[in-house]
Amino acid sequence: MNKTSSNTMALAPNPSNKRETVCIFGTGDFGRALGHKMIQSGYPVVYGSRSTQISNLIPKDAEVLGHAEAAQKAAVIIVAIQRQHYNFLAPLAEVLHGKVLVDISNNLKLNQYPESNAEHLAQLLPGSKVVKGFNTVSAWALQSGTLDASRQVFICGDDVEAKQMVMNIVRGLGLTPVDKGSLLAAQEIENYPLQLFPMWKFPIFLSLGLGLFFFFYSLALDVIHTYIYENNNFLFFIAITVPNRVFPVMALTLLGLVYLPGIFAAIIQLYRGTKYRRFPNWLDKWMLARKQLGLIALAFASLHAVFTLVTPLRAFASWRTSRQIISQALSNETVPLDHTNAWLSDSYLAMGMLGFFLFVLLGITSLPSVSNSVNWREFRFVQSKLGYLALILCTAHTMIYGGKWFLNPSAYKWYLPDIYMLSLVVPCAVLVVKFVLIFPCVDKPLTRIRQGWERKPRYSEQSNYIINKSAV
Amino acid sequence: MNKTSSNTMALAPNPSNKRETVCIFGTGDFGRALGHKMIQSGYPVVYGSRSTQISNLIPKDAEVLGHAEAAQKAAVIIVAIQRQHYNFLAPLAEVLHGKVLVDISNNLKLNQYPESNAEHLAQLLPGSKVVKGFNTVSAWALQSGTLDASRQVFICGDDVEAKQMVMNIVRGLGLTPVDKGSLLAAQEIENYPLQLFPMWKFPIFLSLGLGLFFFFYSLALDVIHTYIYENNNFLFFIAITVPNRVFPVMALTLLGLVYLPGIFAAIIQLYRGTKYRRFPNWLDKWMLARKQLGLIALAFASLHAVFTLVTPLRAFASWRTSRQIISQALSNETVPLDHTNAWLSDSYLAMGMLGFFLFVLLGITSLPSVSNSVNWREFRFVQSKLGYLALILCTAHTMIYGGKWFLNPSAYKWYLPDIYMLSLVVPCAVLVVKFVLIFPCVDKPLTRIRQGWERKPRYSEQSNYIINKSAV
Amino acid sequence: MNKTSSNTMALAPNPSNKRETVCIFGTGDFGRALGHKMIQSGYPVVYGSRSTQISNLIPKDAEVLGHAEAAQKAAVIIVAIQRQHYNFLAPLAEVLHGKVLVDISNNLKLNQYPESNAEHLAQLLPGSKVVKGFNTVSAWALQSGTLDASRQVFICGDDVEAKQMVMNIVRGLGLTPVDKGSLLAAQEIENYPLQLFPMWKFPIFLSLGLGLFFFFYSLALDVIHTYIYENNNFLFFIAITVPNRVFPVMALTLLGLVYLPGIFAAIIQLYRGTKYRRFPNWLDKWMLARKQLGLIALAFASLHAVFTLVTPLRAFASWRTSRQIISQALSNETVPLDHTNAWLSDSYLAMGMLGFFLFVLLGITSLPSVSNSVNWREFRFVQSKLGYLALILCTAHTMIYGGKWFLNPSAYKWYLPDIYMLSLVVPCAVLVVKFVLIFPCVDKPLTRIRQGWERKPRYSEQSNYIINKSAV
Repeated sequence: MNKTSSNTMALAPNPSNKRETVCIFGTGDFGRALGHKMIQSGYPVVYGSRSTQISNLIPKDAEVLGHAEAAQKAAVIIVAIQRQHYNFLAPLAEVLHGKVLVDISNNLKLNQYPESNAEHLAQLLPGSKVVKGFNTVSAWALQSGTLDASRQVFICGDDVEAKQMVMNIVRGLGLTPVDKGSLLAAQEIENYPLQLFPMWKFPIFLSLGLGLFFFFYSLALDVIHTYIYENNNFLFFIAITVPNRVFPVMALTLLGLVYLPGIFAAIIQLYRGTKYRRFPNWLDKWMLARKQLGLIALAFASLHAVFTLVTPLRAFASWRTSRQIISQALSNETVPLDHTNAWLSDSYLAMGMLGFFLFVLLGITSLPSVSNSVNWREFRFVQSKLGYLALILCTAHTMIYGGKWFLNPSAYKWYLPDIYMLSLVVPCAVLVVKFVLIFPCVDKPLTRIRQGWERKPRYSEQSNYIINKSAV
Repeated sequence: MNKTSSNTMALAPNPSNKRETVCIFGTGDFGRALGHKMIQSGYPVVYGSRSTQISNLIPKDAEVLGHAEAAQKAAVIIVAIQRQHYNFLAPLAEVLHGKVLVDISNNLKLNQYPESNAEHLAQLLPGSKVVKGFNTVSAWALQSGTLDASRQVFICGDDVEAKQMVMNIVRGLGLTPVDKGSLLAAQEIENYPLQLFPMWKFPIFLSLGLGLFFFFYSLALDVIHTYIYENNNFLFFIAITVPNRVFPVMALTLLGLVYLPGIFAAIIQLYRGTKYRRFPNWLDKWMLARKQLGLIALAFASLHAVFTLVTPLRAFASWRTSRQIISQALSNETVPLDHTNAWLSDSYLAMGMLGFFLFVLLGITSLPSVSNSVNWREFRFVQSKLGYLALILCTAHTMIYGGKWFLNPSAYKWYLPDIYMLSLVVPCAVLVVKFVLIFPCVDKPLTRIRQGWERKPRYSEQSNYIINKSAV
Repeated sequence: MNKTSSNTMALAPNPSNKRETVCIFGTGDFGRALGHKMIQSGYPVVYGSRSTQISNLIPKDAEVLGHAEAAQKAAVIIVAIQRQHYNFLAPLAEVLHGKVLVDISNNLKLNQYPESNAEHLAQLLPGSKVVKGFNTVSAWALQSGTLDASRQVFICGDDVEAKQMVMNIVRGLGLTPVDKGSLLAAQEIENYPLQLFPMWKFPIFLSLGLGLFFFFYSLALDVIHTYIYENNNFLFFIAITVPNRVFPVMALTLLGLVYLPGIFAAIIQLYRGTKYRRFPNWLDKWMLARKQLGLIALAFASLHAVFTLVTPLRAFASWRTSRQIISQALSNETVPLDHTNAWLSDSYLAMGMLGFFLFVLLGITSLPSVSNSVNWREFRFVQSKLGYLALILCTAHTMIYGGKWFLNPSAYKWYLPDIYMLSLVVPCAVLVVKFVLIFPCVDKPLTRIRQGWERKPRYSEQSNYIINKSAV
């Protein structure tokens, strides 16, 4: 189909409002679902099938013909067959010449083949215009209209006209086409529906591991130690008390781990005196996982907030309160307000709440639609400045919570530090090094390095210079 | 306007930065607002009007001419007149030949005419290129720039070049064009601004009805029964106590109703032995309302969370607490910690909080920008796996809350079950059937049916086979 | 490059999957970063440089040539040099004729030059096709792939083909091109990365000023007055009590300020008898800042909610509770439930929670992805109807909180009203005037004015009629 015919088609008066016929090769589940949807949307559909005997599964308004006859009836052909059977299309090369072939296939594993199915099809039929698309849509979602997760249809292809035709069909079905460029993007598009949160795997396993460690650590010190030495059975602490000791520790540690790689990167750049060398692989991966680590930290912080607020509703809390009050009442004493205590209690609560508030703000700005509406400078301002402020507030919250217990030997059950002390290690390390890094005598050379300056420029052509990620 | 002239225009050096003249037919409110906006954005504007006497309402930098003269001055003509007066454009057919006509009209009712206004215009003037657009923008928003709700301008039309020209004008006005395909989409675009949350109507009315029923049920048992039999006037319970009994009941019931249609669908498919038959209409509608039902359930759950957390701040709660403590103190007794009670209290709180946390996660993933950034597999994982986990946790929360009261006759005032028992009906039914459905002997045939297998395939051509929605 | 050659290129079979060579003028930081990214994405890159001696900073797979030779090797040339040096491109005009020049430059200040850099380049080289782009992407983000804030690349240009070519490269790099129209948009695109929340400046400074005033006002009355006259040192109130008196006052005042400009606008329109005159400048600015004011009000309301819920956990609160209970126990009295008090306490809490709930709903609908998915009618319904309901509930919450203290002289320390009374001024004024405005005798003429009717139409051509913003 050349430019002129396409234009003629578009300009032609369209009195009957009839849409262009679409051909579908293959009568499998997805081919039928797509056909039904197209007929509903007003497209005449013709199926190309090996056997032209009428199957009852095919939508009744569709025609069923042999492949060659079906192909001749339409400009766009949906190839709803599996990659293994692409070879049988080779004899049809002449009929398919100049036609738009839409490859909708999916694989079973990531990167199953060296080249994508769509590119394979394009090499097989160089005279046809191959467009990749529809593979991210589920047959069920197509039918039901509840396309919350997949209203977007990723399209790619080397021919602009062909892509436009397919995108118009996508719109005609009530979906949103997203142009991903040339056919080189097909591999990515084919891998897309096979992924299950690939960016989240490492952060989630790290959190699970850390969480289990802290859980059993807290269980040992808060429940088992109490049971052995104080003869108190507080096994029910497993429901709220122990989790609510683990949640804040996880939140603070993970928040520290969000900012730690940036610190490492700065130290490496200062040590090397250049930014034009690749970071170690582990640091690269870590830096790319920061957003996910931050969101998991936010989840733990939210759980900590709710588990804390619920305290007065617990039977244990009201029992403890009434016991304290009754013992005071029976001994006929009136305790005056302990001002130091009131200060500590109020300030650690205030720090925690303000830190949590900033943390939630950070979470909101990481929503795709919000982060798309701010520019790079604004995003860095929020994530870096507000992020560090949140880290400082949450660290201070934990320190004041600990209060004077740091120096008290009785806080060290079995000679082990309490769990909240462990949680301070990473954030304190980050804050101390960060504090050193903002000294002018350190900050100046670092800034110059990040602007491209090198301490000892080398001219050997062999070295593989790759522009480095500057740390945030 | 042919291809060549369009290209020439784009390539021509543009030293004076002058934009192309735009013609507006009609000097009504929206026509004037659009004209002002265009002049502000640098477009010369010429109005086509029946009377060319200068009206003071028309922007002073605009020219006013007769329709024919005005049309000759521009390639794009905004038709800002009502559908009833389209006929008077017929005599201008020759002047308007090849011009781009932008239909910006709206109707007063949904589907007021058999065909859309834009299609009507295109049939009237087959030589012109009709583009639909701007009808979703409000005159006020156009002027003020506070276009939060309507920065998007939906565009459709059969001529690609004409659409591009209109989309460039849209961008020139600082708005975002959204290409909705051919002129067939005009009906949908014209209906769009008339809608008021059409998907929400049924879920909201259902929630209102259920909510009122549960409110009066709780009022009868918790306030009126207490007043009659215990002579306690707890009318002030209407403010917090009674709502906070209705909110969790609504949340749990609605969450159950989100998963119930999927259960029905599975049973129907198992019974019929095929997925190639349409579900009953009520089930179709119900399945499409699940997202809205879920979000309303989340709203009730959030209200329940806040209304519960506020408990210790209530005058009634502090009065009750102090009365209990004082009576204990006066009788000189020290009650030991009731471990069963502590277990029950802590575990129902923990279940509730974890369930609510998952529920909020589900809500966040249903934000358009988040659900657009996950694929179908990830969306199903979150909505199905995490959703059922939330349902299980919330059901367990309610059951443990009830505790041993289920078997206690005094819990049945007026021989009626308490409100929380009613809330368990739907979710328990869902969970029990779901539990049966995941048994291999049931799950296997169901999976095969959903993959396209049929128990007794039929070959009668008459039956209207439509691929069914497989339940989630 | 004409239409035909472009088509030929797209249609040509692409067996080696090689992408088109891209030329980059300039070997600065961003030029190198872009080159590295392009090589990674499969584009052959050739640098045009004054000195062709091989610098070790340039990616090793890239070629380095003189400007003219480099330009001849590619159809697309990235101009990664600063505006001051554009003049040296003039002698290359012949070589660059017909080439696509991508201007990626940024300025140091907003509107630094009368015309944008891209337009300046286009005037300098009228034979080339200038496209603006890539300036909003950071060199770091380009390399690291963590493009949360800048996956979008804004593109503009007068030549459609040239723009398409650049947009394909953008997609090839894994970024999302956003077409902003003709080269006139270059100024806006160049200003974009220099902004730091421009719409937020006025609302934030206003909130800071108001917040400081209320903080010291509350400090004086709640801490200093108590210290002087009651000899109570409550300095620790600074942490939670005083902030939690300022937060609700700020939230309610700012929420009132969101609806106040609409009231002013209505009064001005009624007084003038026309909507066709521009509002005073301060009112225009105020109306455009309403969304930001509302979100800041929501932030304060959220802080108020958390600071209130945390009350029972404060050492001060538990000390006060136990002191009250013990004094009751010691005097051997049992206080009966004060029903008025229970009513007041429960209803002000319920009002506050419902108001806050609606407020959060409003905040959610102002998320870009949510507000884009509702139409103008739905947006107005939420923002206007639900917004006023939230304002009414929050005002009632504050009034009932005050209770009978309004008339009690002891509430007026130093003859000054308490801080919560001050917070009622703006919202009460808004609600009273709004109540008057919805009377039919006022609403009718206002509606007619907003539909375009004028009380005394004038015909003097000199007056500068501009369609006014009608208030929401």
